[in-house]
Amino acid sequence: MRGAILYAPGDVRFEERDDPRIIKPTDAIIRMSATCVCGSDLWPYRGFNPTAEPSPMGHEYCGIVEEVGREVTSVKPGQFVIGSFFASDNTCPICRAGYQSSCQHAEFVGGAQAPVLRVPLADGTLVATPGVPSKDMIPSLLSTSDVFGTGWFAAEAANVKPGMTVAVVGDGAVGLLGVLSAKQMGAERIIAMSRHEARQKLAREFGATDIVTERGDEGVARIKDLTNGIGADAVLECVGTQESMKQAIGSTRKGGYVSYVGVPHGVQLEGQELFFAHVHLHGGPAPVRRFLPKLIDLVLNGKVSPGKVFDLTLPLEQVAEGYRAMDERRAIKTLLCP
Amino acid sequence: MRGAILYAPGDVRFEERDDPRIIKPTDAIIRMSATCVCGSDLWPYRGFNPTAEPSPMGHEYCGIVEEVGREVTSVKPGQFVIGSFFASDNTCPICRAGYQSSCQHAEFVGGAQAPVLRVPLADGTLVATPGVPSKDMIPSLLSTSDVFGTGWFAAEAANVKPGMTVAVVGDGAVGLLGVLSAKQMGAERIIAMSRHEARQKLAREFGATDIVTERGDEGVARIKDLTNGIGADAVLECVGTQESMKQAIGSTRKGGYVSYVGVPHGVQLEGQELFFAHVHLHGGPAPVRRFLPKLIDLVLNGKVSPGKVFDLTLPLEQVAEGYRAMDERRAIKTLLCP
Repeated sequence: MRGAILYAPGDVRFEERDDPRIIKPTDAIIRMSATCVCGSDLWPYRGFNPTAEPSPMGHEYCGIVEEVGREVTSVKPGQFVIGSFFASDNTCPICRAGYQSSCQHAEFVGGAQAPVLRVPLADGTLVATPGVPSKDMIPSLLSTSDVFGTGWFAAEAANVKPGMTVAVVGDGAVGLLGVLSAKQMGAERIIAMSRHEARQKLAREFGATDIVTERGDEGVARIKDLTNGIGADAVLECVGTQESMKQAIGSTRKGGYVSYVGVPHGVQLEGQELFFAHVHLHGGPAPVRRFLPKLIDLVLNGKVSPGKVFDLTLPLEQVAEGYRAMDERRAIKTLLCP
Repeated sequence: MRGAILYAPGDVRFEERDDPRIIKPTDAIIRMSATCVCGSDLWPYRGFNPTAEPSPMGHEYCGIVEEVGREVTSVKPGQFVIGSFFASDNTCPICRAGYQSSCQHAEFVGGAQAPVLRVPLADGTLVATPGVPSKDMIPSLLSTSDVFGTGWFAAEAANVKPGMTVAVVGDGAVGLLGVLSAKQMGAERIIAMSRHEARQKLAREFGATDIVTERGDEGVARIKDLTNGIGADAVLECVGTQESMKQAIGSTRKGGYVSYVGVPHGVQLEGQELFFAHVHLHGGPAPVRRFLPKLIDLVLNGKVSPGKVFDLTLPLEQVAEGYRAMDERRAIKTLLCP
């Protein structure tokens, strides 16, 4: 089969790779219905993470089970399944506490920008839908595999509750779905920080009540203006840079909550500043598996349409253009069809 | 009157100062029943914080109201009162959210190592006991003013719940009262990290089930050993150094909670390490005012004896020796009697 391989910054190729096959008896093989490019794929694409050797790319997936290992009991060939980018056994104490992305046996699921994928720990990782969903449901279902699950975690980790004022730093797909998640959790006021018209529009569609275009100290001042000088109850940091983290913490009211869900790059938190900011801080790799049943349900019941973050759809073989469009911010997120 | 003044590192003097008086109509003047030396007083005493000019010391207090400003309505002369080291109006949105130490009108209450003290914002800051308590209750009641309230906040900020495994980094008075607080909140297992026999003994008396004497990476490994490789559900960081913070975060299970209640000195948190540690982090200046009614109640009902952390009692005029004893770790905490 052919799949996406990153050779060096800016150099994604669609090339022949070995066909995935069952390696362990707990594996499953999935024929992809759709996959996509993640904001986090842009870190190595932009050279912020080193690429030591050619790397199969992609970690968001949904599709039809083709084959399962002999120990797999919860899914079977022919079923439509979705899984997280971290395979998890879903039985260890960390999983039971709801942190499947830090499962004691966690394995990163890589190489999903391809027509076929091997998923380890299939029983603990994959969630099957009641039937095979219609084609128009695929983008939203695919989003639960990472980007919606991560936006949901951002809102949950920031303790969003009914009636709260929430601010979202970052207007990428995760930030936008953070807005949607906060809305679902009953936030009364949702302030999206964005300076791109198309993204502002989608943020409003997802539930944003206010848009702040300023950044940095000016962005913080604007959030304070909008909240009687207090700051937001909950702030979702959906970028992962020092500036965005600083902006998030500064925008939060004393005693409020800051979540961060993008892998931080170059972020340093000074202890005393954090101490007097008096915030709650929580984040990390989103434990998407915890949320999958709920999010799939929201999608299948038509309550939400997170698939709207895909504003560019390409055949899988044009994956390189999918990266370029996101890198140049011409697209929010690229859907890839095998 | 005479009170404690810090001139330079190691140089505390008991000297003549102006008598406190009502400055604002919201003030109260208190005649101190007892005061004490705080672990945080040792930062400037040891030269970690600069002392630009001679500074009146002390911020823990309880005593009898002598006089109130004309706008004070909730306390009156003759009442026994306790307050926090941060005066707060207790009505602003931050106070109502339970973060009185970050009140929009917060004022630090300094100069409490003296026979008389001015407390600003008396209505929002002071809590009166039902009657004048007996002398033997004074140490425990005094402790609610800061050290017990801070230990309590450490346990609360680390989300301690019934059945949890809790670790406490730091065997100072705050750490020891973190142990007591975790016990009160129903923790099943409480691991105190301490290498001092007298403190270990008090930790056990307060509810510690295990003692870990190792520090740093070895301390982390020991906590992992004791928790099936998982880490503690909640870890209370009660020191404020880079090493203690690292030890606390490393000792916590993925998805668990870390609190920090000592002003951090030289602490830097690296974003990516924190991200993959996957912990909740919360701390800051303890909002003692929130806890005062509850803690006073626990003391007056004889449920707890937090005053046991005072293992040295001196006349106020020997305040310098009180500092020395704590600096040299001969005493856990010094009670001072005016």
